[in-house]
Amino acid sequence: VAKVENISELTWFDTAVQALSDPQDLRVWSLIVTCFGDIAQTPGDQISGVALTELGAAIGLRSEAVRVALHRLRKDGWIESLREGRASFHRLSTKGLRETHEATPRIYARTPERPQAWHLICSEENTDLPVTGVPPQNYLQLTRRVALGAGKARQAPDEVLSFDVCVENVPAWMQARICPPGLLNTARDLLEALIETDRQLSQSQSVPGALQRAALRTLIVHRWRRLLLKMPELPDGFFPDDWAGESCRNLTAELLERLPCPSLAELETAAGHSRNRR
Amino acid sequence: VAKVENISELTWFDTAVQALSDPQDLRVWSLIVTCFGDIAQTPGDQISGVALTELGAAIGLRSEAVRVALHRLRKDGWIESLREGRASFHRLSTKGLRETHEATPRIYARTPERPQAWHLICSEENTDLPVTGVPPQNYLQLTRRVALGAGKARQAPDEVLSFDVCVENVPAWMQARICPPGLLNTARDLLEALIETDRQLSQSQSVPGALQRAALRTLIVHRWRRLLLKMPELPDGFFPDDWAGESCRNLTAELLERLPCPSLAELETAAGHSRNRR
Repeated sequence: VAKVENISELTWFDTAVQALSDPQDLRVWSLIVTCFGDIAQTPGDQISGVALTELGAAIGLRSEAVRVALHRLRKDGWIESLREGRASFHRLSTKGLRETHEATPRIYARTPERPQAWHLICSEENTDLPVTGVPPQNYLQLTRRVALGAGKARQAPDEVLSFDVCVENVPAWMQARICPPGLLNTARDLLEALIETDRQLSQSQSVPGALQRAALRTLIVHRWRRLLLKMPELPDGFFPDDWAGESCRNLTAELLERLPCPSLAELETAAGHSRNRR
Repeated sequence: VAKVENISELTWFDTAVQALSDPQDLRVWSLIVTCFGDIAQTPGDQISGVALTELGAAIGLRSEAVRVALHRLRKDGWIESLREGRASFHRLSTKGLRETHEATPRIYARTPERPQAWHLICSEENTDLPVTGVPPQNYLQLTRRVALGAGKARQAPDEVLSFDVCVENVPAWMQARICPPGLLNTARDLLEALIETDRQLSQSQSVPGALQRAALRTLIVHRWRRLLLKMPELPDGFFPDDWAGESCRNLTAELLERLPCPSLAELETAAGHSRNRR
């Protein structure tokens, strides 16, 4: 009986992993950074090489791929590694911690932290919009000389004509520019994967273990984070009606609640058991 | 003594007329329309040919020029003329009354009736702004695809991206576009003429007669109206600090108050006396 339960458990989990894995995105290093950001972003937090290898195995990564990714992350200054005898431990570097902390609020926000104020700027004729002093990623360029930005207009440079604005009408051509078919599909695909994960989780007979939770959380946050990167921060009306991004946000938050983040100790214990079973 | 007073009166009046006359604008028909709009814009109001001739003489127009202008206005459907024996009477046609009534509020407004709400519209890429259904004179085109309009954004066509806006900053390059040197000078010149008229009026020893009041009012309203035509309706910040337009508006209103509009009967009586004196 124990064996049957085990197989059934593997089935729901594997199905969820398969749904959440993106064959077009095999960036192991990015998955590892996501995992650190999810489970080990307090200074001093560290994860053993064994735990990372077992976590990788749970989501279908070969140990060699995990090792290569760790090497790359170390070389790029994202993580620091320590050896203790035959064991190794890894943690986010100061830079890694900083970048993770910057990204965290937006990734885990249950409701989007969308700016309440917006402004438009217009540059002089034959003059491109200024970018110095204005993070260009905060502006949506509407035309060569006109851009929409978050926040109040008073922050805009003195040389531009500026207005505080409220969006009234966003026509389909603008929505299509913000959400081209590729982005619409990315969001729709993620929503399907999240729905499948939710279904598998509901049908599973057992409570997911620490390693399973960490693995699913990593995959979910990784996918959601990648979609977020492609989603501009804009007032609601800019997204078309069939935009699945907000449903992805909601279901991501729900799933993360149903899959509580294990403590580092729980993760290490579960990884040790998993390794011994193999 | 009576004679001396008379000369002194002529002097202040002639100086004021000279200050208010624009040598670059000799459109007699436009002066006559202005006069009708000022003194005879109630349906049924009419002015005799004698009164118009005397009024013209007071501001330096030859009777022949007045006759030609009346002919043109009649031909263009602005006025209708009646003959009674040797006398002639003229009045605004239905069209003349309509156009006059349309222009009157803006010309005589003591404070500008500036819209409280403004909106911006942006057309699709490679698409010019729509003009159908949107009176283009109400829009200030900021770029090929972006324009600022009076009123709420909800009135804009569905195919444009639209925003309700509040102006925050208008840089010098935009003010210079709205008020190029020519317009700045036109306003400054008018202000000087109005100040000179005000000075002459204050120094005059006598109360201006009906003909003098009608003549000065016509010249003042004519000049102010021409400036108004060149002034776009825009939020305050769009005008440079040295823009004299608002001072012109205030002084025009003040002078019109100091020079009360004569009744048609007063005008005809004064014209009769003036004609007999000559």
